[in-house]
Amino acid sequence: MGELHVRSVLVTGANRGIGLGFVRHLLALPNPPEWLFATCRDPKGQRAQELQQLASKHPNLVIVPLEVTDPASIKAAAASVGERLKGSGLNLLINNAAALKANSLDTETLKDMSQVYTTNTIAPLLLGQAFLPLLKKAAQGNPGSGMSCSKAAIINISSTAGSIKDMLLWESEQCLSYRCSKAALNMLTRCQSRGYREHGILCMSFHPGWVQTDMGKKVGDMPPLTVDASVGGMLKVLSNLSEKDSGSFLDWEGNVVPW
Amino acid sequence: MGELHVRSVLVTGANRGIGLGFVRHLLALPNPPEWLFATCRDPKGQRAQELQQLASKHPNLVIVPLEVTDPASIKAAAASVGERLKGSGLNLLINNAAALKANSLDTETLKDMSQVYTTNTIAPLLLGQAFLPLLKKAAQGNPGSGMSCSKAAIINISSTAGSIKDMLLWESEQCLSYRCSKAALNMLTRCQSRGYREHGILCMSFHPGWVQTDMGKKVGDMPPLTVDASVGGMLKVLSNLSEKDSGSFLDWEGNVVPW
Repeated sequence: MGELHVRSVLVTGANRGIGLGFVRHLLALPNPPEWLFATCRDPKGQRAQELQQLASKHPNLVIVPLEVTDPASIKAAAASVGERLKGSGLNLLINNAAALKANSLDTETLKDMSQVYTTNTIAPLLLGQAFLPLLKKAAQGNPGSGMSCSKAAIINISSTAGSIKDMLLWESEQCLSYRCSKAALNMLTRCQSRGYREHGILCMSFHPGWVQTDMGKKVGDMPPLTVDASVGGMLKVLSNLSEKDSGSFLDWEGNVVPW
Repeated sequence: MGELHVRSVLVTGANRGIGLGFVRHLLALPNPPEWLFATCRDPKGQRAQELQQLASKHPNLVIVPLEVTDPASIKAAAASVGERLKGSGLNLLINNAAALKANSLDTETLKDMSQVYTTNTIAPLLLGQAFLPLLKKAAQGNPGSGMSCSKAAIINISSTAGSIKDMLLWESEQCLSYRCSKAALNMLTRCQSRGYREHGILCMSFHPGWVQTDMGKKVGDMPPLTVDASVGGMLKVLSNLSEKDSGSFLDWEGNVVPW
């Protein structure tokens, strides 16, 4: 079991929940990233205070403003990250930012379906496009070795709620827009893994478990997993990924989740 | 093998391709529907001429104007169909209208992703909601029997291009927005089958095959299947569906397609 050793990482939706958990865990690694880019919509706002406190202590943590539903904001973020990296590439893009609306089959609307899809599915596509030059650069900087997260990878945070086969938690929460967007995100992962294979970029979908976050609590009172357990598990899985895992859908313990 | 015997059917996107094929085949059945509602965006336009000619010969064929991406248009269509049915229900809703943009992973845009999702995924959801009262009425009019298309069913026309596992035809056409929308549509089918089970409404996804239509030709020069072979096959499969098939993804020959 290797330990994740990665020079540069970007995490979206990093001001709370699982995103913030990734930031904390990455900063605490024996070999933390040289550059850890943490994006959130409003870095100066009340909801980014914990991230700000971490940044004041860790000079390798850079907070980047990003509204993932705005293509111009994505381009600006990629340009800003590229400048900071001064010619080196980005190893790891973690598409974590997501939205959930607790609608049912009967109450779901065009507006919510569209908004949730834009955040959960279209944004990871656009982020992959915008950061592709930096990811390619990272892969080219590691010639010879196989695929890995230390080289170049896109990690899409999905959910078993997006497993078309499993349909878990239907009785407690239907959240149709979320389910459809995550099924589509898994398809995006497959497309990215096929399209970016030639560039040496590993792409996979993660189910982080049902976690004690604001979002996790929207679908029931008692999510069983702490953020620490979920993120710790995912980082362990990430450290062991290789070429054969590109295009897969795994949970935080490394188990395969059915499509 | 039963023959499809259904009192009332609605087909979206019915002015050409597979939609028009359904209309022709349903009209030619030994027991054609009493009411066959064929929707298209512009019933008076050039592209609806074949449908108009059919309607002039078949009084049971009613052309209904419908823009599937407009919730108000969907509601108006449901109201108009309800009036025609004079108190009886709708047995079969065939969500066939769809859009395809031949973009690649690199050229896909927010706008196309959003438009294709609205047509291919959100519209079938909204149509299911709007026609639910009429579908429930049809199911209630057939108490005692199990689920079937002759009783009440929603059929979503999907595609193996939306099979997350298979990823067919990637080399010839990536059409990311289409793939993601069809994976999400399959999730919608699963949600509808769970949510509408208590009302006795059967819900499934179809892969019609790679068919000689305008859309089929967008992904390659030589689609192998004629519209007649595809629609004939699907109608045969539809006539034999029962409760166990609700929530499934089948092709025009009745084979199970992986999610």
